[in-house]
Amino acid sequence: MHDKFLSKASELMPELNETIHRPVELVEALPDKNALHGVKMINGKYVENLYSQELQNGDIFTVDFGTHIVGYLTLKIKPVGHQQDSPLRLRLVFGEMPCEIPDFEYAGTLSSTWIQEEIVNIDVLAEPFTLPRRYAFRYLKVEILGRCTAYRVKFEDIYCTAVTSSDCSSIEKLNDDMDTMLAKIDEVSIRTLKNCSQEVYEDGPKRDRRLWLGDLRLQAIADYVTFKNYNLVKRCLYLFAGLPHPDGQISSCIFHEPTLSNDSWILNDYSLFFISVLYDYFNETNDLNLLKELWDTAFRQAEIVSEQIDEYGLVKHGQTKYFVDWCEGLDKNTSAQAIAIYTFKQCHALATALNDEKRMSFLEENINVLTKGAVKHLYNNEIGFFESGERNQLSWHSQIWMILAGVFEKDANANLLKRLINSDIEIRPRTPYMYHHFIQALFDCDMKEDAIKYIKAYWGKMVELCADCFWEVFDPDNLLLSPYNSIQINSYCHAWSCTPSYFIRKYLS
Amino acid sequence: MHDKFLSKASELMPELNETIHRPVELVEALPDKNALHGVKMINGKYVENLYSQELQNGDIFTVDFGTHIVGYLTLKIKPVGHQQDSPLRLRLVFGEMPCEIPDFEYAGTLSSTWIQEEIVNIDVLAEPFTLPRRYAFRYLKVEILGRCTAYRVKFEDIYCTAVTSSDCSSIEKLNDDMDTMLAKIDEVSIRTLKNCSQEVYEDGPKRDRRLWLGDLRLQAIADYVTFKNYNLVKRCLYLFAGLPHPDGQISSCIFHEPTLSNDSWILNDYSLFFISVLYDYFNETNDLNLLKELWDTAFRQAEIVSEQIDEYGLVKHGQTKYFVDWCEGLDKNTSAQAIAIYTFKQCHALATALNDEKRMSFLEENINVLTKGAVKHLYNNEIGFFESGERNQLSWHSQIWMILAGVFEKDANANLLKRLINSDIEIRPRTPYMYHHFIQALFDCDMKEDAIKYIKAYWGKMVELCADCFWEVFDPDNLLLSPYNSIQINSYCHAWSCTPSYFIRKYLS
Repeated sequence: MHDKFLSKASELMPELNETIHRPVELVEALPDKNALHGVKMINGKYVENLYSQELQNGDIFTVDFGTHIVGYLTLKIKPVGHQQDSPLRLRLVFGEMPCEIPDFEYAGTLSSTWIQEEIVNIDVLAEPFTLPRRYAFRYLKVEILGRCTAYRVKFEDIYCTAVTSSDCSSIEKLNDDMDTMLAKIDEVSIRTLKNCSQEVYEDGPKRDRRLWLGDLRLQAIADYVTFKNYNLVKRCLYLFAGLPHPDGQISSCIFHEPTLSNDSWILNDYSLFFISVLYDYFNETNDLNLLKELWDTAFRQAEIVSEQIDEYGLVKHGQTKYFVDWCEGLDKNTSAQAIAIYTFKQCHALATALNDEKRMSFLEENINVLTKGAVKHLYNNEIGFFESGERNQLSWHSQIWMILAGVFEKDANANLLKRLINSDIEIRPRTPYMYHHFIQALFDCDMKEDAIKYIKAYWGKMVELCADCFWEVFDPDNLLLSPYNSIQINSYCHAWSCTPSYFIRKYLS
Repeated sequence: MHDKFLSKASELMPELNETIHRPVELVEALPDKNALHGVKMINGKYVENLYSQELQNGDIFTVDFGTHIVGYLTLKIKPVGHQQDSPLRLRLVFGEMPCEIPDFEYAGTLSSTWIQEEIVNIDVLAEPFTLPRRYAFRYLKVEILGRCTAYRVKFEDIYCTAVTSSDCSSIEKLNDDMDTMLAKIDEVSIRTLKNCSQEVYEDGPKRDRRLWLGDLRLQAIADYVTFKNYNLVKRCLYLFAGLPHPDGQISSCIFHEPTLSNDSWILNDYSLFFISVLYDYFNETNDLNLLKELWDTAFRQAEIVSEQIDEYGLVKHGQTKYFVDWCEGLDKNTSAQAIAIYTFKQCHALATALNDEKRMSFLEENINVLTKGAVKHLYNNEIGFFESGERNQLSWHSQIWMILAGVFEKDANANLLKRLINSDIEIRPRTPYMYHHFIQALFDCDMKEDAIKYIKAYWGKMVELCADCFWEVFDPDNLLLSPYNSIQINSYCHAWSCTPSYFIRKYLS
């Protein structure tokens, strides 16, 4: 642990902004095979109808808060017909999406304790009852449990104190002539980023409050064009720098509460992205002091990977030590190679800014070795695509990352990308995370119209499906996709999905 | 509301004394048709065995705290094998008795929300987790819920911060030559009183935290020979006096939190017992100031009942407006008559102490009318018993209360009591509340040996059945008796059962 970094991170702890949200209507989640996930929210009555009703054991209702929020729920309930002579027992089910509201058999691979459900016993109803835990939700189902309770209850108020460390007032308005769908996509992106921005950039506020380095990289660039919450990026950089593994490698993710600790996960691409986050931050802020402070940490990530280059100029452990994407059957070796080149180049730019000639040379040499290795051993001239692994797998991932790494010149990259789009290569982006890199490649190749088309086809499709925030997982061809075998446990407000704002505001405004 | 009284009650709010209790062993609740309630606690291993185990989803254990306690549970748990990357979900079941621990179908008539069960989600295990609600229990079952949780857990500590407003250091030791069983009964009585003594005298800390006047009367006399917690009695008197119904009648019970209010219940015998509590308190403390303050309130209770005497000198509404006892089929009219005489006599004694001649005459007159009415219309000379109601019901209750009321002289009372004991009258005491009155009648008639015999046969039998505190309901002939159709919802630490200490220390020490 580097206490100096951690203490600086601690000084940058943000205050959370609070806003009160109340439900906007009563709804009912009904099975509907034509609806997303097979569940449709039927619009119901005004919430005022709820507040005038006397409820008793067995009664159930669902309210819709109108949009996705992250915060603390408060209930104001009064007993009617008789004094409250016994505890009130409620079951509360919180859902980001309609599919989380009906009872379901959980068959997922993540811990079922992430399912946002509480059974609470309230001894005295006279005071507002605030649940101690934070939830991420739009829908709330309330079930009055128990039998033979002498009194009935009236709900007098239901509200959520939503929290975020983002300041919405700092966002510039889009141009009035912005395409309507892009404007809507921007709005949903911003909400996604806002709801993930807490004491750290969280991965997904429903189910994973950890700070992941791969997600931080994307959140940060989206933040620079929206909230400009620079201190939060800085704080997160300090946290990662403060909690390296013994050999200096940065963790993929960090638990920030209740005691800071790094996770056991080590992914080389994520470690290398420490360089990217610092690179982007420096380009955005010109903060030379921070760069100097974190330079050794950043360089160490490149150094560690440089020690894992084989005699052919190829990075080792591509399949096991890199994340790249959730994509069944993906061979990651070529993507890993490209990510090394991509981040080594950013590292070289930082060395240049610091005039660190020794490390500049070191990095130049490694970039050359890796680039030559890639062209010689991974690129198949005959078919015009990069291959990956022993089985020479073709994937969109390999091409996209090699384009981002700039292994070829711009025109060659653009041609490669066009070939890719027109190809029938089946292993393709299916997560917002990988889609981001695809869109970035399109912009890098000046294929703006294609970029817009794909942004609309992907994030726009989520908007059409009524997304309030962008989802962790989305495959337009398989709406039931879940890497955890449960659509209910998927995160529907997820850090790595918030980048359309970055594209829209950087390239299209 | 009489704010003056309530503000005095508030000034007398006691501080709660805290003691820490830890489980003494691991146990298992197993079905056993020979055991009380069909459930036997099998003694298991040392709790240290628990603390060394790694537990995971689906694991269940039960601990025994060794005795009945009332307080707040704290769990110290740490994740093992992996960081805590998801919430821990626990089901906690608290039991005063073994029968509450196994899962059961609730078929009771009281609200099932009284069943002491929680499902808690703990987001971060690093800090001790204290549940916000208070429980009354000896046994705690812990079930680790959820599926697919990556980490396991180790329990490091489990403790209950027990609370009471009683001060145990103030209790005098019994004589060394005290009968062993009586000493044990005294110990269990004291624990019962202690665990019911909180911010008010509670009825039963598991299920009814209200302050009931009928129970207060018995708790107070037990307290005078043990904790001498005079201020708590005084506070409770002020609470009742401060919250009368519009005609001045005192409520049977009071909710003391979160806002003071009286319950809608009005029972004439309970209202009249306000006089008894004040009478006993004055005899114990000689606090003439309090007597003066509360005299009008006390007298008003007698006055209200005096308005309900018919032309035969009999109190009306005996069946509907009096509690007397839980006893199926009991005709309460004669008991009601006796309770009026009993309390009017106490009221007369208070009037005498205050030299309030007008009210003395008023009460004398009423006592005469009621006594004559009782002897003339309720006593059947031929069979030598009091009868009750239109069907001339014979019950132990009628005889016991007429003896306590002193309608006859001492010798005649003693003869009546002996006839009763040797009779085959089937409607008899089956609750500790009514048993108390029976024992009091025995002492009043100088039948000390019989009193000891019956104390041992009743409360001693509970001790033999391993009672840590005395129960709300106990019928040696029907161990499954529950006025609520559920042995699990019965209270096993109940105010009105704590009086053996009063008898032992007043008459037998």
